[in-house]
Amino acid sequence: MWAQREITLRPRPRGFHLVTREVLEALPELGELTVGLLHLHLRHTSASLTLNENASPDVRRDFETWISDAVPERFAWTHTLEGPDDMPAHVKASLLGPSLSLPVARGRLALGTWQGVYLCEHRDAGGPRSLVATLQGEA
Amino acid sequence: MWAQREITLRPRPRGFHLVTREVLEALPELGELTVGLLHLHLRHTSASLTLNENASPDVRRDFETWISDAVPERFAWTHTLEGPDDMPAHVKASLLGPSLSLPVARGRLALGTWQGVYLCEHRDAGGPRSLVATLQGEA
Amino acid sequence: MWAQREITLRPRPRGFHLVTREVLEALPELGELTVGLLHLHLRHTSASLTLNENASPDVRRDFETWISDAVPERFAWTHTLEGPDDMPAHVKASLLGPSLSLPVARGRLALGTWQGVYLCEHRDAGGPRSLVATLQGEA
Repeated sequence: MWAQREITLRPRPRGFHLVTREVLEALPELGELTVGLLHLHLRHTSASLTLNENASPDVRRDFETWISDAVPERFAWTHTLEGPDDMPAHVKASLLGPSLSLPVARGRLALGTWQGVYLCEHRDAGGPRSLVATLQGEA
Repeated sequence: MWAQREITLRPRPRGFHLVTREVLEALPELGELTVGLLHLHLRHTSASLTLNENASPDVRRDFETWISDAVPERFAWTHTLEGPDDMPAHVKASLLGPSLSLPVARGRLALGTWQGVYLCEHRDAGGPRSLVATLQGEA
Repeated sequence: MWAQREITLRPRPRGFHLVTREVLEALPELGELTVGLLHLHLRHTSASLTLNENASPDVRRDFETWISDAVPERFAWTHTLEGPDDMPAHVKASLLGPSLSLPVARGRLALGTWQGVYLCEHRDAGGPRSLVATLQGEA
């Protein structure tokens, strides 16, 4: 079985945001799969997806602090036309990556207890973000 | 064909560890696939999987040296309740990622000669690590 | 439907190179899929694949500047036998990753307008690079 849906994530401020519930609510077909994979793909080059700790907001804040220190706005960038947050956003997006493949078992994501899906917004005003969810497996 | 197995990797010290053989030995179904994909997913937020050089232990030691320099314990972390190695472990886990998708051809992984699967243990005492292996393809 | 092809990418200098067209031209079967996934896997440990901005060459130059600053040749490396660009190349390769999974819809990659596939060449003289493309979906 294959299913594919486009999901629009509402605009969020720069930082790391837990979106697991929002994504799963848009994918009722996931409950029909006994075994499979869910592929999530963000159609942008200045935001990313990652999987990390789903409990403490401190963790998500620390992610933003670390990554903006590692990929700073003050650097020898040449591509600066679209603002100081643009080129760092491109690099951060590739470090974390645009997509996730997640295992599905018995109608649910087979994640660890503490794993949640983060939308990583690297622009100051990134706007809504478009995600393609592709689901496949045995029904 | 779909097959899914949970594999428990024994506890390892902080660092980078070659686990290709251990993972493949748990997946006898892989030999039946003429073409397909193997998806490996670690169910943790403080360890990760990557693919890199499978020969020299120096390479794996240098990975640990570099990543612990890039994501240090001494930093402006706010999430410090679970110990100084915890928050760096979360960031390292997302930099390298929790999963790998590997091509399968004629009953074997279609990797390069030098590519091996690393378990990247980012905690000082991470304990056993649980991995979900999802195999799909044409038998 | 499954299809798998090995694609050889011609040698490129160290840096980030847009290869979307070159890869797609080698995959005529992609046009037959109504829904599916394309998995691209680089069979090397000193080059990587990422998805990023497909328009400005400045962006790709800035990627090279940033990553060679973050993973420098002058560092406490112990694996130095294969040259000063070798161990940094291994780390860079794992940071960006050896593979991409891309959604397919109505016979085309369902990417964002600005997303393109980069071959990230981390060696000074990496030579030709071998890529395994695995295509699956509903025809």
